[in-house]
Amino acid sequence: MTANPTTINAPQGTPFLDVVRDFDATPAQLFRAVTEPELVARWLGPRDLEITIEEYDARPGGRYRFTHHGGHLGEQQAWFNGVFHTVEPAKLIIRTFEFEGVPGEVTLEIMRFSEVDGRTRLTQRAVFPSLETREGALASGMAFGIEQSMDRLAEVLDKEV
Amino acid sequence: MTANPTTINAPQGTPFLDVVRDFDATPAQLFRAVTEPELVARWLGPRDLEITIEEYDARPGGRYRFTHHGGHLGEQQAWFNGVFHTVEPAKLIIRTFEFEGVPGEVTLEIMRFSEVDGRTRLTQRAVFPSLETREGALASGMAFGIEQSMDRLAEVLDKEV
Repeated sequence: MTANPTTINAPQGTPFLDVVRDFDATPAQLFRAVTEPELVARWLGPRDLEITIEEYDARPGGRYRFTHHGGHLGEQQAWFNGVFHTVEPAKLIIRTFEFEGVPGEVTLEIMRFSEVDGRTRLTQRAVFPSLETREGALASGMAFGIEQSMDRLAEVLDKEV
Repeated sequence: MTANPTTINAPQGTPFLDVVRDFDATPAQLFRAVTEPELVARWLGPRDLEITIEEYDARPGGRYRFTHHGGHLGEQQAWFNGVFHTVEPAKLIIRTFEFEGVPGEVTLEIMRFSEVDGRTRLTQRAVFPSLETREGALASGMAFGIEQSMDRLAEVLDKEV
């Protein structure tokens, strides 16, 4: 099977990072895969890293926190956390996102699910708190992590949901 | 007493709305005035409106929700809600903000407190989820509401905290 492409767009002069990806799944299946921690653990992040999810409470006001480790991180851990603002099943998730290595630089993440030609399109926008933080995230290889995550998410949807 | 000026900046082509205001108060006093609901109720919004705060739980993962009514709103209510991501006493607040009249268009608000020449400077950035939503907020008179709120906040700090 050929993977659907992931489109990543970083419009110049803006703090936006836009990701679009179609999945061969229903909106309800995609929603499960991004809200149930046991499923999230199977796709979030680059392939070489392990993930440990401390908390993943996908409801308005719920928090999440996880760490990547192993692989190219060696002995280091990379912790991330955030809080859910909107959780509309199979439709919309809005949440904050913080890499604890750069504390206080919080991003807003918007994930919309829509049906397109029998597939489900994930339209994701990350809104950074400044132009510089977006450039920093891109320079750190964020796009590579997103592409691998999206491919892994498609694999999870094929097998598990 | 002459009020300190409020600076409002909306850099073209960005989704940012930046507000800077100095207060004759300590960072701890300013922090109280923006986190204790009884005090927030005395300054948040234009002077002609009344406010009813349903919830205002200023801690990480806490939610807030309030409505403006009366004055130029007549019989209407204007509900707002959000969730706190970061609450560092006397230093930093990061939270989401949603006007329920335009659901799903959530803004990220960052409020930093710093001491400058014996005063406390509030440096606030609202990060809108698109260029269009910021323009819509400005067109709705948001800057006027911010200026009146900042003047009222200064008055609360003079009298009550």
